[in-house]
Amino acid sequence: CFCLQMGWDLMAAQGMLFPNFYTANPLCSPSRAALLTGRLPVRNGFYTTNAHARNAYTPQEIVGGISPDEILLPQLLKKKDYVSKIIGKWHLGHRTQYLPLKHGFDEWFGSPNCHFGPYNNSVCPNIPVYNNSEMKGRYYEEFEINVKTGIQPHPNLFEGLDFISQQAVAQRPFFLYWAPDATHAPVYASKCFLGKSQRGRYGDAMMELDDSIGQILAHLVSLGIHNNTLVFFTSDNGAAVMYGPLQSGSNGPFLCGKETTFEGGMREPAIAWWPGRIPAGTVSYQLGSGMDLFSTSLSVAGIHPPDDRVIDGLDLSPVLFNNSLLDRPIFYYRGNQMMAVRIGQYKAHYWTWSNSWEEFNKGINFCPGQEVPGVTTHTQEEHTMQPLIFHLGQDPGERYPISVESKEYRDVLRQVTAVVEQHQTDLIPGMPQLNMCDLAVMSPPGCEQLGKCLKPPEPNPWKCDWPHYLVSYP
Amino acid sequence: CFCLQMGWDLMAAQGMLFPNFYTANPLCSPSRAALLTGRLPVRNGFYTTNAHARNAYTPQEIVGGISPDEILLPQLLKKKDYVSKIIGKWHLGHRTQYLPLKHGFDEWFGSPNCHFGPYNNSVCPNIPVYNNSEMKGRYYEEFEINVKTGIQPHPNLFEGLDFISQQAVAQRPFFLYWAPDATHAPVYASKCFLGKSQRGRYGDAMMELDDSIGQILAHLVSLGIHNNTLVFFTSDNGAAVMYGPLQSGSNGPFLCGKETTFEGGMREPAIAWWPGRIPAGTVSYQLGSGMDLFSTSLSVAGIHPPDDRVIDGLDLSPVLFNNSLLDRPIFYYRGNQMMAVRIGQYKAHYWTWSNSWEEFNKGINFCPGQEVPGVTTHTQEEHTMQPLIFHLGQDPGERYPISVESKEYRDVLRQVTAVVEQHQTDLIPGMPQLNMCDLAVMSPPGCEQLGKCLKPPEPNPWKCDWPHYLVSYP
Repeated sequence: CFCLQMGWDLMAAQGMLFPNFYTANPLCSPSRAALLTGRLPVRNGFYTTNAHARNAYTPQEIVGGISPDEILLPQLLKKKDYVSKIIGKWHLGHRTQYLPLKHGFDEWFGSPNCHFGPYNNSVCPNIPVYNNSEMKGRYYEEFEINVKTGIQPHPNLFEGLDFISQQAVAQRPFFLYWAPDATHAPVYASKCFLGKSQRGRYGDAMMELDDSIGQILAHLVSLGIHNNTLVFFTSDNGAAVMYGPLQSGSNGPFLCGKETTFEGGMREPAIAWWPGRIPAGTVSYQLGSGMDLFSTSLSVAGIHPPDDRVIDGLDLSPVLFNNSLLDRPIFYYRGNQMMAVRIGQYKAHYWTWSNSWEEFNKGINFCPGQEVPGVTTHTQEEHTMQPLIFHLGQDPGERYPISVESKEYRDVLRQVTAVVEQHQTDLIPGMPQLNMCDLAVMSPPGCEQLGKCLKPPEPNPWKCDWPHYLVSYP
Repeated sequence: CFCLQMGWDLMAAQGMLFPNFYTANPLCSPSRAALLTGRLPVRNGFYTTNAHARNAYTPQEIVGGISPDEILLPQLLKKKDYVSKIIGKWHLGHRTQYLPLKHGFDEWFGSPNCHFGPYNNSVCPNIPVYNNSEMKGRYYEEFEINVKTGIQPHPNLFEGLDFISQQAVAQRPFFLYWAPDATHAPVYASKCFLGKSQRGRYGDAMMELDDSIGQILAHLVSLGIHNNTLVFFTSDNGAAVMYGPLQSGSNGPFLCGKETTFEGGMREPAIAWWPGRIPAGTVSYQLGSGMDLFSTSLSVAGIHPPDDRVIDGLDLSPVLFNNSLLDRPIFYYRGNQMMAVRIGQYKAHYWTWSNSWEEFNKGINFCPGQEVPGVTTHTQEEHTMQPLIFHLGQDPGERYPISVESKEYRDVLRQVTAVVEQHQTDLIPGMPQLNMCDLAVMSPPGCEQLGKCLKPPEPNPWKCDWPHYLVSYP
């Protein structure tokens, strides 16, 4: 094994680090839909109205997917002849009409969902893996994943490097959306990295990811296109901390993790790299969002964003190239509910919730080892009349609500109220796409080619109930 | 203001980072006594037997201090003609016989205690500040500290730089123990840094400390002695987290903070720097201790450690210069009780305690926002028959005790038991120096010169009761 193991450090040393960067949602599917549309899930439809403040995503039984009315980044990039590829997890719907090649991508190697499993394929099929529109097999079958022996080769790094090479040689502009999911439970790493970190299997997967970042950057340099390429690293949600020690990440000083609107659920690592354009070794305190990648990419490519809809993403070019600071709020949504908002250093919680007592008592814990009374509540608590306000600079762990009797509280509340009222007045929610489930949709397009179709049951749709699952991994 | 603000990053980039480095004790005085003697507090006497597992230190009413039987690093360095200076907080006793110049230091600028205060000096005098044996004034009086306006100049950085210059010019070998305490509550920063960080006043103080580190390194380089100087940065305990948002630090992913034997109380940042000798940009997973600085410094200076006593410090030279890994345990003591031990990645808790319910109910919280049932206990819980064992790699937050029924547990327990039995068999506790308090000792030597003595009360010693104080800061 040849391991660089210095992707992130190198990227930060040569680029710009964003300690105040957020995902648009604390769960994968809505976060990714927002990344590619530049719009909050509540606008682009990646949410459910089946229950209040309930995250939804695209499991195998989901009927919906990304709406045909949404315009995705690769569709817009075509205006300037960009070739677009997604490698890895898609997660915007797995039925024919929702797949990446129907939404602007020219190429795809990966799967519509995570590598959950292995499943008993007589009842629930394993997740398919595609090369473009061709189904090449399934995880745990043709695409082996063995979390104990780690013999799964690293997810698609080489397809990524190869794609970059091809475009460089052809001198074509390109967009690579590299979306590995090895750090998603069940976490795995290739043999080369398994057992190599100090941090168990999760650390092994992180080490491999770090190495891959380094390889991608080195590849760009070796092709001589580094001065012409914007690379951005970030994540689609905070580390999951509910899977026990082997499968959970860590959100460091932040509260809770994935699924929640506390900082641990939505604050993300983020680094931008573009040698010669972005000043090396810099730190920007800009409040950023994954949705900004949509707007920034368009700006860099010289393409106007759509003007017939609200775009939540911000063009970060002035930040990247001139170290400007742009004033903007960050909204924290959980499903259909705006739970919190951040302006400047202040975050106001309008609703708090970790998960229900019922789920918590079954052992599902979104905040293991952490508890802030009145904040990490197990009932959905409304604070709209008197939001809980934290100063995230002085109190990154959201442990000390600012006294409602202080001048500081009143001043912040006044500012926050104006921002929230504006947001809610202007907001026209999109049609929710994640309300219906049906076991009949679990057999994906393409299985015929492989002779691996499973006879689907008769259609029998129901309103998805979106439980927070207790998943037990080795 | 001219601010480099890149001390630690630069130091790590040019040196060796230790993510598994510990202090010998979760409280200041014992930790510093251990640093300078290379011996656990339970050996060098910096503990109390007045109560079980109770941390003790050297407040103004303490009768004791560092024992004359202990041999401190600067005393030994004299064998090779080193000049030694301490700048900042001493904390090994404030009566005449305990002061730094009586224990091997040639120079001192600083105070015997922290900058607690301001005090009403008719009852409790403010802490004195010395230049060598001369008392120059007191904090909050001649040495102004104003945590709101930050007009206190940075603690003694320039004395440090000046001392280095003098020794470089004279070509004398030197030992500088630079012990600033601006990050100790009440936290302060100089005007240049106040309000400059994203992290409140604590962040301002950290930013200034970072800047100072950078200035010291730059100074060594400018004097041309960087290839001849070992610099080590570490802390005497984990960040205090009990003082509310403005005065508390953060221990990131680690559990609890100062005063406790959880990782947040004793795992420390640590960087070694010696251009040309220590390989740049390296990370060592060596289990290290502040006490190792004693042994390593002697080794580097070519001086044999005392052979008439147990030295707990390890000579880290093979680690620093050859990236070796040395097998050794880390013992976590709280007062007179070994609470836990770490071997390799495993930590076994023999006793757990945060603080008493009585104190906790008064608002004294050593683990705010954190709670691990059965681990962060508010009663002193003995686990000596069946220690709680954690894998600190997979579980740095000490949240998931390894099942006592697993083979892993049995294997680790066997190893840990052997180490602990050996330790306890060999251990001869030193005479406890921190048992007696007396208000009559609060007036320090040197006040006469300034005409600032306060009439001390008649001697009336009592057994110190070592409460965990609730201190309220603005």
